Amino acid sequence: MTPDGGRLNEAEQQQRRAAIPGIFAQTPFLAWLGLEVERYEPDAVATRLPFRVELSNDGKTYHGGVIGAVIDTTGALAAWSNHDFDRGTRASTVSMALQYVAASSGGDLLCTAKTVRRVRELIFTEITASDGTGRVLAHGLQTYRIA
Amino acid sequence: MTPDGGRLNEAEQQQRRAAIPGIFAQTPFLAWLGLEVERYEPDAVATRLPFRVELSNDGKTYHGGVIGAVIDTTGALAAWSNHDFDRGTRASTVSMALQYVAASSGGDLLCTAKTVRRVRELIFTEITASDGTGRVLAHGLQTYRIA
Amino acid sequence: MTPDGGRLNEAEQQQRRAAIPGIFAQTPFLAWLGLEVERYEPDAVATRLPFRVELSNDGKTYHGGVIGAVIDTTGALAAWSNHDFDRGTRASTVSMALQYVAASSGGDLLCTAKTVRRVRELIFTEITASDGTGRVLAHGLQTYRIA
Amino acid sequence: MTPDGGRLNEAEQQQRRAAIPGIFAQTPFLAWLGLEVERYEPDAVATRLPFRVELSNDGKTYHGGVIGAVIDTTGALAAWSNHDFDRGTRASTVSMALQYVAASSGGDLLCTAKTVRRVRELIFTEITASDGTGRVLAHGLQTYRIA
Repeated sequence: MTPDGGRLNEAEQQQRRAAIPGIFAQTPFLAWLGLEVERYEPDAVATRLPFRVELSNDGKTYHGGVIGAVIDTTGALAAWSNHDFDRGTRASTVSMALQYVAASSGGDLLCTAKTVRRVRELIFTEITASDGTGRVLAHGLQTYRIA
Repeated sequence: MTPDGGRLNEAEQQQRRAAIPGIFAQTPFLAWLGLEVERYEPDAVATRLPFRVELSNDGKTYHGGVIGAVIDTTGALAAWSNHDFDRGTRASTVSMALQYVAASSGGDLLCTAKTVRRVRELIFTEITASDGTGRVLAHGLQTYRIA
Repeated sequence: MTPDGGRLNEAEQQQRRAAIPGIFAQTPFLAWLGLEVERYEPDAVATRLPFRVELSNDGKTYHGGVIGAVIDTTGALAAWSNHDFDRGTRASTVSMALQYVAASSGGDLLCTAKTVRRVRELIFTEITASDGTGRVLAHGLQTYRIA
Repeated sequence: MTPDGGRLNEAEQQQRRAAIPGIFAQTPFLAWLGLEVERYEPDAVATRLPFRVELSNDGKTYHGGVIGAVIDTTGALAAWSNHDFDRGTRASTVSMALQYVAASSGGDLLCTAKTVRRVRELIFTEITASDGTGRVLAHGLQTYRIA
Protein backbone atom coordinates (compact mmCIF):
# COMPACT_ATOMS: atom_id res chain seq x y z
CA MET A 1 0.00 0.00 0.00
CA THR A 2 0.97 3.57 -0.45
CA PRO A 3 1.76 5.63 2.62
CA ASP A 4 -1.79 6.96 2.66
CA GLY A 5 -3.25 3.45 2.59
CA GLY A 6 -4.31 3.46 -1.05
CA ARG A 7 -3.62 0.63 -3.44
CA LEU A 8 -0.64 0.64 -5.74
CA ASN A 9 -1.37 0.94 -9.43
CA GLU A 10 0.25 -1.44 -11.88
CA ALA A 11 3.13 0.92 -12.70
CA GLU A 12 3.94 1.25 -9.00
CA GLN A 13 3.79 -2.52 -8.54
CA GLN A 14 6.16 -3.02 -11.46
CA GLN A 15 8.54 -0.40 -10.18
CA ARG A 16 8.74 -2.06 -6.78
CA ARG A 17 9.23 -5.52 -8.30
CA ALA A 18 11.96 -4.23 -10.58
CA ALA A 19 13.84 -2.73 -7.65
CA ILE A 20 14.23 -6.06 -5.82
CA PRO A 21 17.33 -7.48 -7.57
CA GLY A 22 19.23 -4.28 -6.83
CA ILE A 23 18.15 -4.36 -3.19
CA PHE A 24 19.21 -7.99 -2.89
CA ALA A 25 22.58 -7.24 -4.49
CA GLN A 26 23.32 -4.67 -1.81
CA THR A 27 22.71 -6.93 1.19
CA PRO A 28 26.05 -7.79 2.75
CA PHE A 29 26.02 -11.56 2.26
CA LEU A 30 24.79 -11.48 -1.34
CA ALA A 31 27.22 -8.70 -2.19
CA TRP A 32 30.03 -10.89 -0.91
CA LEU A 33 28.66 -13.94 -2.74
CA GLY A 34 28.62 -12.02 -6.03
CA LEU A 35 25.36 -13.52 -7.23
CA GLU A 36 24.22 -12.20 -10.62
CA VAL A 37 20.59 -12.12 -11.73
CA GLU A 38 20.42 -13.23 -15.37
CA ARG A 39 16.66 -13.35 -15.81
CA TYR A 40 13.96 -11.74 -13.71
CA GLU A 41 10.56 -12.27 -15.28
CA PRO A 42 7.31 -12.70 -13.40
CA ASP A 43 7.61 -16.02 -11.52
CA ALA A 44 10.68 -17.12 -13.49
CA VAL A 45 14.19 -16.19 -12.39
CA ALA A 46 17.70 -17.32 -13.28
CA THR A 47 20.90 -16.51 -11.43
CA ARG A 48 24.60 -17.16 -11.98
CA LEU A 49 27.28 -17.43 -9.33
CA PRO A 50 30.72 -16.95 -10.88
CA PHE A 51 33.12 -19.52 -9.53
CA ARG A 52 35.62 -18.47 -6.90
CA VAL A 53 37.86 -20.70 -4.82
CA GLU A 54 36.37 -19.30 -1.61
CA LEU A 55 32.99 -20.80 -2.53
CA SER A 56 34.40 -24.27 -2.88
CA ASN A 57 35.12 -27.37 -0.85
CA ASP A 58 38.40 -28.07 -2.50
CA GLY A 59 39.18 -25.36 -5.02
CA LYS A 60 36.91 -26.98 -7.61
CA THR A 61 33.46 -28.06 -6.43
CA TYR A 62 30.97 -25.69 -4.83
CA HIS A 63 30.36 -26.19 -1.12
CA GLY A 64 26.85 -27.58 -0.57
CA GLY A 65 26.08 -24.69 1.75
CA VAL A 66 26.82 -22.23 -1.03
CA ILE A 67 24.52 -24.15 -3.38
CA GLY A 68 21.81 -24.10 -0.70
CA ALA A 69 22.20 -20.35 -0.18
CA VAL A 70 21.92 -19.70 -3.92
CA ILE A 71 18.85 -21.95 -4.20
CA ASP A 72 17.24 -20.09 -1.29
CA THR A 73 18.00 -16.69 -2.79
CA THR A 74 16.90 -17.60 -6.31
CA GLY A 75 13.61 -18.95 -4.95
CA ALA A 76 13.14 -15.74 -2.99
CA LEU A 77 13.68 -13.71 -6.15
CA ALA A 78 11.00 -15.76 -7.92
CA ALA A 79 8.65 -14.99 -5.04
CA TRP A 80 9.31 -11.25 -5.29
CA SER A 81 9.29 -11.17 -9.09
CA ASN A 82 5.51 -11.18 -9.25
CA HIS A 83 4.61 -10.12 -5.73
CA ASP A 84 1.56 -8.01 -5.00
CA PHE A 85 3.12 -5.23 -2.93
CA ASP A 86 -0.24 -4.32 -1.44
CA ARG A 87 0.21 -7.46 0.65
CA GLY A 88 3.27 -6.10 2.45
CA THR A 89 7.03 -6.40 2.30
CA ARG A 90 8.17 -8.36 5.36
CA ALA A 91 9.68 -11.50 3.95
CA SER A 92 11.38 -14.70 4.99
CA THR A 93 11.95 -18.27 3.95
CA VAL A 94 9.61 -20.50 5.94
CA SER A 95 10.96 -23.88 4.92
CA MET A 96 13.18 -25.37 2.26
CA ALA A 97 13.97 -28.92 1.21
CA LEU A 98 17.13 -29.69 -0.73
CA GLN A 99 18.26 -32.73 -2.65
CA TYR A 100 21.89 -32.86 -3.64
CA VAL A 101 22.08 -35.14 -6.66
CA ALA A 102 25.61 -34.53 -7.99
CA ALA A 103 28.85 -32.72 -7.22
CA SER A 104 29.71 -29.82 -9.50
CA SER A 105 32.32 -30.55 -12.09
CA GLY A 106 33.44 -26.98 -12.53
CA GLY A 107 32.36 -23.69 -13.95
CA ASP A 108 29.78 -21.27 -12.65
CA LEU A 109 26.73 -22.22 -10.62
CA LEU A 110 23.49 -21.63 -12.53
CA CYS A 111 20.16 -21.59 -10.81
CA THR A 112 16.59 -21.34 -12.12
CA ALA A 113 13.49 -20.85 -10.01
CA LYS A 114 9.80 -20.66 -10.74
CA THR A 115 6.80 -19.88 -8.63
CA VAL A 116 4.48 -22.84 -8.36
CA ARG A 117 1.63 -21.17 -6.50
CA ARG A 118 0.77 -18.14 -4.40
CA VAL A 119 -1.66 -18.68 -1.55
CA ARG A 120 -2.31 -15.47 0.36
CA GLU A 121 0.97 -14.60 2.15
CA LEU A 122 2.76 -17.82 1.09
CA ILE A 123 4.67 -18.39 -2.13
CA PHE A 124 5.76 -21.89 -3.19
CA THR A 125 8.81 -22.08 -5.42
CA GLU A 126 10.82 -24.81 -7.15
CA ILE A 127 14.50 -24.34 -7.83
CA THR A 128 17.14 -26.24 -9.80
CA ALA A 129 20.90 -25.66 -9.57
CA SER A 130 23.27 -26.77 -12.33
CA ASP A 131 26.95 -26.42 -13.08
CA GLY A 132 28.62 -24.92 -16.12
CA THR A 133 28.30 -28.18 -18.05
CA GLY A 134 24.52 -28.35 -17.60
CA ARG A 135 24.70 -31.10 -14.99
CA VAL A 136 21.96 -30.79 -12.39
CA LEU A 137 23.48 -30.49 -8.90
CA ALA A 138 20.52 -29.97 -6.62
CA HIS A 139 16.80 -29.37 -6.43
CA GLY A 140 14.91 -27.31 -3.91
CA LEU A 141 11.34 -26.83 -2.77
CA GLN A 142 10.89 -23.58 -0.90
CA THR A 143 8.04 -21.99 1.02
CA TYR A 144 8.50 -18.25 1.20
CA ARG A 145 6.38 -15.70 3.02
CA ILE A 146 5.82 -12.02 2.28
CA ALA A 147 3.25 -10.05 4.26
CA MET B 1 40.67 -49.47 5.66
CA THR B 2 44.37 -49.29 5.82
CA PRO B 3 46.31 -49.18 2.57
CA ASP B 4 46.91 -52.92 2.76
CA GLY B 5 43.18 -53.59 3.12
CA GLY B 6 43.24 -54.41 6.80
CA ARG B 7 40.79 -53.03 9.30
CA LEU B 8 41.59 -49.98 11.38
CA ASN B 9 42.01 -50.49 15.07
CA GLU B 10 40.21 -48.30 17.54
CA ALA B 11 43.13 -45.91 17.98
CA GLU B 12 43.36 -45.43 14.23
CA GLN B 13 39.61 -44.83 14.00
CA GLN B 14 39.81 -42.22 16.76
CA GLN B 15 42.75 -40.51 15.15
CA ARG B 16 40.92 -40.20 11.84
CA ARG B 17 37.76 -38.91 13.51
CA ALA B 18 39.73 -36.37 15.51
CA ALA B 19 41.36 -35.03 12.35
CA ILE B 20 38.06 -34.07 10.70
CA PRO B 21 37.44 -30.64 12.29
CA GLY B 22 40.87 -29.50 11.20
CA ILE B 23 40.30 -30.77 7.68
CA PHE B 24 36.94 -29.00 7.51
CA ALA B 25 38.48 -25.78 8.80
CA GLN B 26 40.93 -25.75 5.90
CA THR B 27 38.37 -26.08 3.12
CA PRO B 28 38.10 -22.73 1.35
CA PHE B 29 34.44 -21.95 2.08
CA LEU B 30 34.55 -22.94 5.75
CA ALA B 31 37.83 -21.09 6.23
CA TRP B 32 36.15 -17.97 4.88
CA LEU B 33 33.05 -18.56 7.00
CA GLY B 34 35.17 -18.80 10.15
CA LEU B 35 33.12 -21.59 11.71
CA GLU B 36 34.46 -22.75 15.09
CA VAL B 37 33.89 -26.24 16.47
CA GLU B 38 33.04 -25.95 20.17
CA ARG B 39 32.19 -29.56 20.89
CA TYR B 40 33.06 -32.69 18.93
CA GLU B 41 31.97 -35.77 20.78
CA PRO B 42 30.74 -38.99 19.19
CA ASP B 43 27.42 -38.14 17.50
CA ALA B 44 27.14 -34.78 19.30
CA VAL B 45 28.65 -31.62 17.88
CA ALA B 46 28.34 -27.90 18.56
CA THR B 47 29.63 -25.05 16.43
CA ARG B 48 29.78 -21.28 16.71
CA LEU B 49 29.87 -18.78 13.90
CA PRO B 50 31.15 -15.43 15.14
CA PHE B 51 29.01 -12.64 13.78
CA ARG B 52 30.34 -10.57 10.88
CA VAL B 53 28.45 -8.07 8.79
CA GLU B 54 29.27 -10.01 5.61
CA LEU B 55 27.21 -12.94 6.89
CA SER B 56 24.12 -10.83 7.34
CA ASN B 57 21.09 -9.59 5.44
CA ASP B 58 21.20 -6.15 6.89
CA GLY B 59 24.19 -5.77 9.17
CA LYS B 60 22.35 -7.50 12.01
CA THR B 61 20.53 -10.73 11.18
CA TYR B 62 22.20 -13.76 9.63
CA HIS B 63 21.31 -14.48 6.03
CA GLY B 64 19.19 -17.64 5.82
CA GLY B 65 21.66 -19.14 3.40
CA VAL B 66 24.44 -18.76 5.96
CA ILE B 67 22.29 -20.46 8.59
CA GLY B 68 21.58 -23.27 6.14
CA ALA B 69 25.29 -23.70 5.35
CA VAL B 70 26.16 -23.89 9.05
CA ILE B 71 23.35 -26.39 9.72
CA ASP B 72 24.62 -28.54 6.83
CA THR B 73 28.21 -28.40 8.04
CA THR B 74 27.37 -29.07 11.69
CA GLY B 75 25.27 -32.07 10.68
CA ALA B 76 28.17 -33.33 8.56
CA LEU B 77 30.51 -33.01 11.54
CA ALA B 78 28.11 -35.10 13.65
CA ALA B 79 28.15 -37.73 10.91
CA TRP B 80 31.97 -37.85 10.87
CA SER B 81 32.33 -37.63 14.66
CA ASN B 82 31.57 -41.31 15.11
CA HIS B 83 32.15 -42.64 11.60
CA ASP B 84 33.54 -46.08 10.98
CA PHE B 85 36.42 -45.29 8.63
CA ASP B 86 36.50 -48.85 7.37
CA ARG B 87 33.36 -47.88 5.44
CA GLY B 88 35.16 -45.29 3.33
CA THR B 89 35.63 -41.55 3.18
CA ARG B 90 33.72 -40.24 0.17
CA ALA B 91 31.08 -38.01 1.66
CA SER B 92 28.21 -35.77 0.69
CA THR B 93 24.92 -34.41 1.91
CA VAL B 94 22.12 -36.36 0.25
CA SER B 95 19.17 -34.27 1.38
CA MET B 96 18.36 -31.63 3.94
CA ALA B 97 15.15 -30.06 5.15
CA LEU B 98 15.19 -26.69 6.89
CA GLN B 99 12.60 -24.83 8.90
CA TYR B 100 13.29 -21.20 9.61
CA VAL B 101 11.33 -20.37 12.73
CA ALA B 102 12.73 -16.96 13.75
CA ALA B 103 15.10 -14.23 12.63
CA SER B 104 18.27 -13.84 14.64
CA SER B 105 18.28 -10.97 17.07
CA GLY B 106 22.04 -10.58 17.19
CA GLY B 107 25.16 -12.22 18.49
CA ASP B 108 26.89 -15.33 17.23
CA LEU B 109 25.18 -18.23 15.52
CA LEU B 110 25.25 -21.40 17.63
CA CYS B 111 24.48 -24.76 16.18
CA THR B 112 24.11 -28.22 17.72
CA ALA B 113 23.80 -31.49 15.84
CA LYS B 114 23.28 -35.07 16.84
CA THR B 115 23.28 -38.31 14.93
CA VAL B 116 19.90 -39.98 15.03
CA ARG B 117 20.81 -43.22 13.28
CA ARG B 118 23.44 -44.82 11.09
CA VAL B 119 22.21 -47.27 8.47
CA ARG B 120 25.06 -48.68 6.42
CA GLU B 121 26.41 -45.76 4.32
CA LEU B 122 23.73 -43.30 5.45
CA ILE B 123 23.80 -41.10 8.54
CA PHE B 124 20.69 -39.24 9.73
CA THR B 125 21.30 -36.09 11.73
CA GLU B 126 19.18 -33.45 13.45
CA ILE B 127 20.42 -29.91 13.82
CA THR B 128 19.26 -26.81 15.69
CA ALA B 129 20.57 -23.27 15.14
CA SER B 130 20.16 -20.56 17.77
CA ASP B 131 21.31 -17.00 18.20
CA GLY B 132 23.35 -15.48 21.01
CA THR B 133 20.24 -15.01 23.16
CA GLY B 134 19.28 -18.68 23.00
CA ARG B 135 16.44 -18.10 20.56
CA VAL B 136 15.99 -21.01 18.17
CA LEU B 137 16.32 -19.81 14.58
CA ALA B 138 16.06 -22.95 12.50
CA HIS B 139 15.87 -26.73 12.56
CA GLY B 140 17.31 -29.15 10.08
CA LEU B 141 16.97 -32.81 9.19
CA GLN B 142 19.90 -34.03 7.15
CA THR B 143 20.73 -37.27 5.37
CA TYR B 144 24.47 -37.60 4.93
CA ARG B 145 26.40 -40.31 3.12
CA ILE B 146 29.92 -41.58 3.67
CA ALA B 147 31.16 -44.62 1.75
CA MET C 1 -13.95 -14.84 17.03
CA THR C 2 -17.46 -15.21 18.20
CA PRO C 3 -20.24 -14.77 15.67
CA ASP C 4 -20.64 -11.15 16.71
CA GLY C 5 -16.94 -10.44 16.15
CA GLY C 6 -15.95 -10.34 19.79
CA ARG C 7 -12.92 -12.12 21.17
CA LEU C 8 -13.16 -15.52 22.75
CA ASN C 9 -12.54 -15.73 26.45
CA GLU C 10 -10.17 -18.33 27.83
CA ALA C 11 -12.92 -20.83 28.60
CA GLU C 12 -14.18 -20.59 25.04
CA GLN C 13 -10.68 -21.03 23.66
CA GLN C 14 -10.17 -24.13 25.82
CA GLN C 15 -13.49 -25.57 24.79
CA ARG C 16 -12.67 -25.19 21.10
CA ARG C 17 -9.20 -26.68 21.55
CA ALA C 18 -10.60 -29.62 23.49
CA ALA C 19 -13.08 -30.37 20.71
CA ILE C 20 -10.40 -30.90 18.06
CA PRO C 21 -9.45 -34.55 18.72
CA GLY C 22 -13.11 -35.55 18.45
CA ILE C 23 -13.50 -33.61 15.21
CA PHE C 24 -10.38 -35.23 13.77
CA ALA C 25 -11.59 -38.69 14.79
CA GLN C 26 -14.75 -38.22 12.75
CA THR C 27 -13.09 -37.30 9.48
CA PRO C 28 -13.41 -40.23 7.09
CA PHE C 29 -9.72 -41.03 6.60
CA LEU C 30 -8.75 -40.78 10.27
CA ALA C 31 -11.81 -42.77 11.30
CA TRP C 32 -10.68 -45.52 8.95
CA LEU C 33 -7.08 -45.26 10.18
CA GLY C 34 -8.21 -45.70 13.78
CA LEU C 35 -5.73 -43.20 15.21
CA GLU C 36 -6.03 -42.74 18.98
CA VAL C 37 -4.98 -39.57 20.81
CA GLU C 38 -3.15 -40.55 23.99
CA ARG C 39 -2.04 -37.12 25.13
CA TYR C 40 -3.33 -33.71 24.11
CA GLU C 41 -1.68 -31.00 26.15
CA PRO C 42 -0.86 -27.51 24.93
CA ASP C 43 1.82 -27.94 22.25
CA ALA C 44 2.51 -31.56 23.19
CA VAL C 45 0.57 -34.43 21.69
CA ALA C 46 0.96 -38.20 21.52
CA THR C 47 -0.97 -40.62 19.32
CA ARG C 48 -1.14 -44.38 18.91
CA LEU C 49 -2.07 -46.29 15.80
CA PRO C 50 -3.05 -49.86 16.67
CA PHE C 51 -1.46 -52.26 14.26
CA ARG C 52 -3.61 -53.76 11.52
CA VAL C 53 -2.45 -55.77 8.55
CA GLU C 54 -4.09 -53.29 6.16
CA LEU C 55 -1.65 -50.59 7.35
CA SER C 56 1.38 -52.66 6.48
CA ASN C 57 3.70 -53.42 3.62
CA ASP C 58 3.91 -57.08 4.35
CA GLY C 59 1.67 -57.95 7.27
CA LYS C 60 4.29 -56.76 9.74
CA THR C 61 5.91 -53.39 9.06
CA TYR C 62 3.95 -50.16 8.66
CA HIS C 63 3.79 -48.75 5.15
CA GLY C 64 5.85 -45.54 5.00
CA GLY C 65 2.83 -43.68 3.70
CA VAL C 66 0.89 -44.63 6.82
CA ILE C 67 3.75 -43.40 9.00
CA GLY C 68 3.81 -40.14 7.04
CA ALA C 69 0.04 -39.68 7.44
CA VAL C 70 0.26 -40.25 11.19
CA ILE C 71 3.20 -37.83 11.51
CA ASP C 72 1.24 -35.21 9.57
CA THR C 73 -1.87 -35.68 11.69
CA THR C 74 -0.02 -35.70 15.02
CA GLY C 75 1.79 -32.49 14.05
CA ALA C 76 -1.55 -30.93 13.13
CA LEU C 77 -2.96 -31.90 16.52
CA ALA C 78 0.01 -30.18 18.21
CA ALA C 79 -0.74 -27.07 16.16
CA TRP C 80 -4.41 -27.06 17.23
CA SER C 81 -3.68 -28.01 20.85
CA ASN C 82 -2.74 -24.46 21.78
CA HIS C 83 -4.24 -22.50 18.89
CA ASP C 84 -5.66 -19.03 19.37
CA PHE C 85 -9.09 -19.44 17.82
CA ASP C 86 -9.45 -15.71 17.33
CA ARG C 87 -7.00 -16.22 14.45
CA GLY C 88 -9.41 -18.39 12.48
CA THR C 89 -10.01 -22.04 11.76
CA ARG C 90 -9.07 -22.70 8.13
CA ALA C 91 -6.15 -25.10 8.34
CA SER C 92 -3.75 -27.04 6.18
CA THR C 93 -0.29 -28.52 6.15
CA VAL C 94 2.00 -26.20 4.18
CA SER C 95 5.08 -28.39 4.00
CA MET C 96 6.50 -31.44 5.68
CA ALA C 97 9.89 -33.13 5.61
CA LEU C 98 10.24 -36.76 6.60
CA GLN C 99 13.24 -38.90 7.41
CA TYR C 100 12.68 -42.62 7.56
CA VAL C 101 15.43 -43.99 9.79
CA ALA C 102 14.27 -47.57 10.47
CA ALA C 103 11.60 -50.10 9.54
CA SER C 104 9.12 -50.96 12.28
CA SER C 105 9.70 -54.24 14.01
CA GLY C 106 6.13 -54.74 15.11
CA GLY C 107 3.56 -53.47 17.51
CA ASP C 108 1.62 -50.23 17.42
CA LEU C 109 2.86 -47.00 15.90
CA LEU C 110 3.47 -44.31 18.52
CA CYS C 111 3.90 -40.70 17.58
CA THR C 112 4.79 -37.61 19.60
CA ALA C 113 4.64 -34.03 18.38
CA LYS C 114 5.53 -30.69 19.86
CA THR C 115 5.07 -27.15 18.68
CA VAL C 116 8.39 -25.43 18.15
CA ARG C 117 7.11 -21.95 17.39
CA ARG C 118 4.02 -20.03 16.37
CA VAL C 119 4.54 -17.08 14.04
CA ARG C 120 1.26 -15.41 13.18
CA GLU C 121 -0.72 -17.88 11.03
CA LEU C 122 2.11 -20.45 10.86
CA ILE C 123 2.85 -23.19 13.36
CA PHE C 124 6.12 -25.15 13.25
CA THR C 125 6.01 -28.65 14.69
CA GLU C 126 8.45 -31.51 15.21
CA ILE C 127 7.27 -35.08 15.22
CA THR C 128 8.83 -38.45 16.05
CA ALA C 129 7.32 -41.84 15.21
CA SER C 130 8.37 -45.01 17.05
CA ASP C 131 7.29 -48.62 17.10
CA GLY C 132 6.10 -50.69 20.02
CA THR C 133 9.66 -51.49 21.07
CA GLY C 134 10.66 -47.84 21.36
CA ARG C 135 12.66 -47.86 18.15
CA VAL C 136 12.50 -44.53 16.34
CA LEU C 137 11.14 -45.03 12.82
CA ALA C 138 10.89 -41.54 11.40
CA HIS C 139 11.19 -37.83 12.13
CA GLY C 140 9.18 -35.03 10.67
CA LEU C 141 9.35 -31.26 10.44
CA GLN C 142 6.00 -29.76 9.60
CA THR C 143 4.80 -26.25 8.78
CA TYR C 144 1.09 -25.94 9.47
CA ARG C 145 -1.18 -22.99 8.83
CA ILE C 146 -4.38 -21.95 10.60
CA ALA C 147 -6.02 -18.64 9.76
CA MET D 1 22.06 -61.21 -9.31
CA THR D 2 20.89 -64.65 -10.16
CA PRO D 3 20.94 -67.28 -7.42
CA ASP D 4 24.29 -68.50 -8.68
CA GLY D 5 25.79 -65.01 -8.45
CA GLY D 6 25.81 -64.28 -12.15
CA ARG D 7 24.58 -61.05 -13.67
CA LEU D 8 21.08 -60.71 -15.01
CA ASN D 9 20.69 -60.28 -18.73
CA GLU D 10 18.53 -57.52 -20.12
CA ALA D 11 15.47 -59.74 -20.52
CA GLU D 12 15.74 -60.80 -16.88
CA GLN D 13 16.12 -57.19 -15.78
CA GLN D 14 13.03 -56.18 -17.76
CA GLN D 15 11.04 -59.06 -16.39
CA ARG D 16 11.86 -58.11 -12.80
CA ARG D 17 11.07 -54.45 -13.43
CA ALA D 18 7.77 -55.33 -15.06
CA ALA D 19 6.75 -57.42 -12.07
CA ILE D 20 6.97 -54.53 -9.59
CA PRO D 21 3.55 -52.89 -10.09
CA GLY D 22 1.86 -56.22 -9.47
CA ILE D 23 3.93 -56.80 -6.33
CA PHE D 24 3.10 -53.32 -5.05
CA ALA D 25 -0.60 -53.86 -5.74
CA GLN D 26 -0.63 -56.90 -3.50
CA THR D 27 0.87 -55.26 -0.44
CA PRO D 28 -1.87 -54.82 2.15
CA PHE D 29 -1.87 -51.01 2.39
CA LEU D 30 -1.71 -50.37 -1.35
CA ALA D 31 -4.36 -53.00 -2.00
CA TRP D 32 -6.64 -51.17 0.41
CA LEU D 33 -5.76 -47.80 -1.11
CA GLY D 34 -6.69 -49.04 -4.58
CA LEU D 35 -3.86 -47.24 -6.34
CA GLU D 36 -3.78 -47.87 -10.10
CA VAL D 37 -0.60 -47.63 -12.19
CA GLU D 38 -1.45 -45.84 -15.44
CA ARG D 39 2.04 -45.53 -16.87
CA TYR D 40 5.20 -47.43 -15.98
CA GLU D 41 8.01 -46.51 -18.30
CA PRO D 42 11.69 -46.35 -17.38
CA ASP D 43 12.02 -43.49 -14.90
CA ALA D 44 8.54 -42.11 -15.67
CA VAL D 45 5.46 -43.32 -13.82
CA ALA D 46 1.88 -42.14 -13.45
CA THR D 47 -0.70 -43.39 -10.96
CA ARG D 48 -4.38 -42.75 -10.33
CA LEU D 49 -6.19 -43.07 -7.02
CA PRO D 50 -9.93 -43.33 -7.61
CA PHE D 51 -11.78 -41.15 -5.17
CA ARG D 52 -13.47 -42.75 -2.17
CA VAL D 53 -14.97 -41.02 0.83
CA GLU D 54 -12.67 -42.97 3.17
CA LEU D 55 -9.65 -41.23 1.63
CA SER D 56 -10.99 -37.79 2.37
CA ASN D 57 -11.04 -35.18 5.08
CA ASP D 58 -14.62 -34.26 4.58
CA GLY D 59 -16.16 -36.44 1.93
CA LYS D 60 -14.67 -34.30 -0.84
CA THR D 61 -10.99 -33.38 -0.50
CA TYR D 62 -8.21 -35.93 -0.15
CA HIS D 63 -6.57 -36.15 3.25
CA GLY D 64 -3.02 -34.78 3.06
CA GLY D 65 -1.70 -38.04 4.47
CA VAL D 66 -3.26 -39.95 1.58
CA ILE D 67 -1.67 -37.55 -0.89
CA GLY D 68 1.68 -38.03 0.84
CA ALA D 69 1.35 -41.82 0.72
CA VAL D 70 0.54 -41.74 -3.00
CA ILE D 71 3.47 -39.39 -3.69
CA ASP D 72 5.79 -41.71 -1.78
CA THR D 73 4.54 -44.79 -3.62
CA THR D 74 4.62 -43.20 -7.07
CA GLY D 75 8.19 -42.03 -6.45
CA ALA D 76 9.12 -45.55 -5.37
CA LEU D 77 7.63 -46.96 -8.57
CA ALA D 78 9.77 -44.53 -10.61
CA ALA D 79 12.81 -45.77 -8.71
CA TRP D 80 12.00 -49.41 -9.48
CA SER D 81 10.95 -48.75 -13.08
CA ASN D 82 14.53 -48.61 -14.30
CA HIS D 83 16.36 -50.30 -11.44
CA ASP D 84 19.42 -52.43 -12.01
CA PHE D 85 18.44 -55.60 -10.17
CA ASP D 86 22.06 -56.67 -9.90
CA ARG D 87 22.29 -54.00 -7.21
CA GLY D 88 19.84 -55.76 -4.91
CA THR D 89 16.20 -55.55 -3.92
CA ARG D 90 16.03 -54.25 -0.34
CA ALA D 91 14.25 -50.94 -0.63
CA SER D 92 13.03 -48.04 1.45
CA THR D 93 12.28 -44.37 1.30
CA VAL D 94 15.15 -42.50 2.94
CA SER D 95 13.65 -39.02 3.02
CA MET D 96 10.83 -37.11 1.43
CA ALA D 97 9.86 -33.46 1.35
CA LEU D 98 6.31 -32.42 0.57
CA GLN D 99 4.77 -29.10 -0.33
CA TYR D 100 1.01 -28.89 -0.23
CA VAL D 101 0.06 -26.07 -2.56
CA ALA D 102 -3.72 -26.50 -2.94
CA ALA D 103 -6.66 -28.53 -1.66
CA SER D 104 -8.21 -30.95 -4.12
CA SER D 105 -11.44 -29.81 -5.67
CA GLY D 106 -12.73 -33.26 -6.45
CA GLY D 107 -12.22 -36.20 -8.72
CA ASP D 108 -9.42 -38.74 -8.68
CA LEU D 109 -5.90 -38.10 -7.47
CA LEU D 110 -3.34 -38.23 -10.30
CA CYS D 111 0.33 -38.51 -9.62
CA THR D 112 3.37 -38.41 -11.89
CA ALA D 113 6.94 -39.21 -10.87
CA LYS D 114 10.26 -39.13 -12.63
CA THR D 115 13.72 -40.23 -11.65
CA VAL D 116 16.10 -37.31 -11.48
CA ARG D 117 19.30 -39.22 -10.86
CA ARG D 118 20.65 -42.58 -9.73
CA VAL D 119 23.80 -42.53 -7.62
CA ARG D 120 24.85 -46.01 -6.62
CA GLU D 121 22.20 -47.29 -4.19
CA LEU D 122 20.28 -44.00 -4.06
CA ILE D 123 17.55 -42.86 -6.44
CA PHE D 124 16.30 -39.27 -6.46
CA THR D 125 12.74 -38.74 -7.65
CA GLU D 126 10.41 -35.80 -8.18
CA ILE D 127 6.68 -36.23 -7.88
CA THR D 128 3.63 -34.06 -8.61
CA ALA D 129 0.08 -34.77 -7.45
CA SER D 130 -2.94 -33.21 -9.16
CA ASP D 131 -6.68 -33.53 -8.90
CA GLY D 132 -9.19 -34.45 -11.59
CA THR D 133 -9.33 -30.88 -12.85
CA GLY D 134 -5.59 -30.69 -13.46
CA ARG D 135 -4.94 -28.52 -10.42
CA VAL D 136 -1.57 -29.24 -8.81
CA LEU D 137 -2.06 -30.24 -5.17
CA ALA D 138 1.41 -31.11 -3.97
CA HIS D 139 5.02 -31.62 -4.95
CA GLY D 140 7.48 -34.07 -3.51
CA LEU D 141 11.21 -34.66 -3.53
CA GLN D 142 12.08 -38.20 -2.52
CA THR D 143 15.31 -40.04 -1.84
CA TYR D 144 14.81 -43.76 -2.26
CA ARG D 145 17.30 -46.56 -1.64
CA ILE D 146 17.52 -50.00 -3.22
CA ALA D 147 20.49 -52.24 -2.45
